[in-house]
Amino acid sequence: MAEEVKLFGIRGSPFSHRIEIALKLKGVSYEYIEEDLQNKSPLLLKYNPVHKKIPVLLHNGKPIAESIVILEYIEETWKTNPILPADPYERAIARFWAKFLDDKCMLAAWNACWAKEKEREKAMEEASEGLKTLEGELKDKKFFGGDKVGMVDIVATFIAFWLTAVQEVVGADLLTPEKFPILFKWSEDLVGCPIIKENLPPRDLLTANFRARLESSK
Amino acid sequence: MAEEVKLFGIRGSPFSHRIEIALKLKGVSYEYIEEDLQNKSPLLLKYNPVHKKIPVLLHNGKPIAESIVILEYIEETWKTNPILPADPYERAIARFWAKFLDDKCMLAAWNACWAKEKEREKAMEEASEGLKTLEGELKDKKFFGGDKVGMVDIVATFIAFWLTAVQEVVGADLLTPEKFPILFKWSEDLVGCPIIKENLPPRDLLTANFRARLESSK
Repeated sequence: MAEEVKLFGIRGSPFSHRIEIALKLKGVSYEYIEEDLQNKSPLLLKYNPVHKKIPVLLHNGKPIAESIVILEYIEETWKTNPILPADPYERAIARFWAKFLDDKCMLAAWNACWAKEKEREKAMEEASEGLKTLEGELKDKKFFGGDKVGMVDIVATFIAFWLTAVQEVVGADLLTPEKFPILFKWSEDLVGCPIIKENLPPRDLLTANFRARLESSK
Repeated sequence: MAEEVKLFGIRGSPFSHRIEIALKLKGVSYEYIEEDLQNKSPLLLKYNPVHKKIPVLLHNGKPIAESIVILEYIEETWKTNPILPADPYERAIARFWAKFLDDKCMLAAWNACWAKEKEREKAMEEASEGLKTLEGELKDKKFFGGDKVGMVDIVATFIAFWLTAVQEVVGADLLTPEKFPILFKWSEDLVGCPIIKENLPPRDLLTANFRARLESSK
């Protein structure tokens, strides 16, 4: 029986991108369905009734939501090119950092670029603290996953690609080679990986969207 | 070689409790080390330098932090009495609900009891929405894990035990048999399970602590 794999996503979303990268790494064919967040499809609402958010992975008719939950499912379902280490302790460490990125870095980095005044300052501090912690974790590794891209790198792609794009538009300087040389080098290496590069949204489109957002917020 | 398993926790914490329950379910012997959050031990700061929080599990000298990450590690390390289903899809669903509980219910339920005025009202709405969603998920199952206690039940013990204690003290009525009959019945069944019951902190001590907190906030 042919497998049915569908992904409900948004092209510019780092969350959708996580799932696309994992599926591509595993060599899983899938149908991509673009959602419109202003007009969510009945299928998205049916498959993720709790959060009503992308990404949703549909595998043989069964829906899964929440990007890290989906990544774990993909890892357990398709064994080729593991994105988590085999050793339980190393897996725990990867899960710790994936959670850290989502809980401590993502919103802070976003608010450091977009929030107003005091909230922005506070977010800037938090985000910088998060990046500093990541810099310390990377140390002499090429990727968080070691020599190759793993789940933590996939989750962290928002720092390597989205954050560097948005900070350029709003004139923030969160991730710079001077402040975080190791993390900056990692971001270049990651975005340079063919599988990541080929599946990222066009950077020009992203910065154009961010510029429009900046203008409308003035 | 004898295994070394140590747990750094706080007796009254639902997060520590999660780890204790999982270890007991697996029949793993461990040394429990009580932390003082006003005066954190050098070992806690060493083993969880990022968050400086309990619980921390130390297994043969290697530290793991974040309660759900620890639960996954325990599940992968000690195979007896699984707390996650064997099927990858069912595992994904369990992970989805564990995340939902931590992200959408825990802080909201706490603030619904402790926050002031408008923030409290908002938290009350959010927490009620969360409990309603959980009521729908439980439906005709005895536990979230099916016939027996699983990871979602372990994570949700804060609702069954801590929330029912705190709402009694502050006079909130979040989880009542009238509002959420299925979830209320589940909470009684869960707290009645010997392995949960024997490892919970004394309810009197908990309510006394909450009463003192309430008095000092007036």
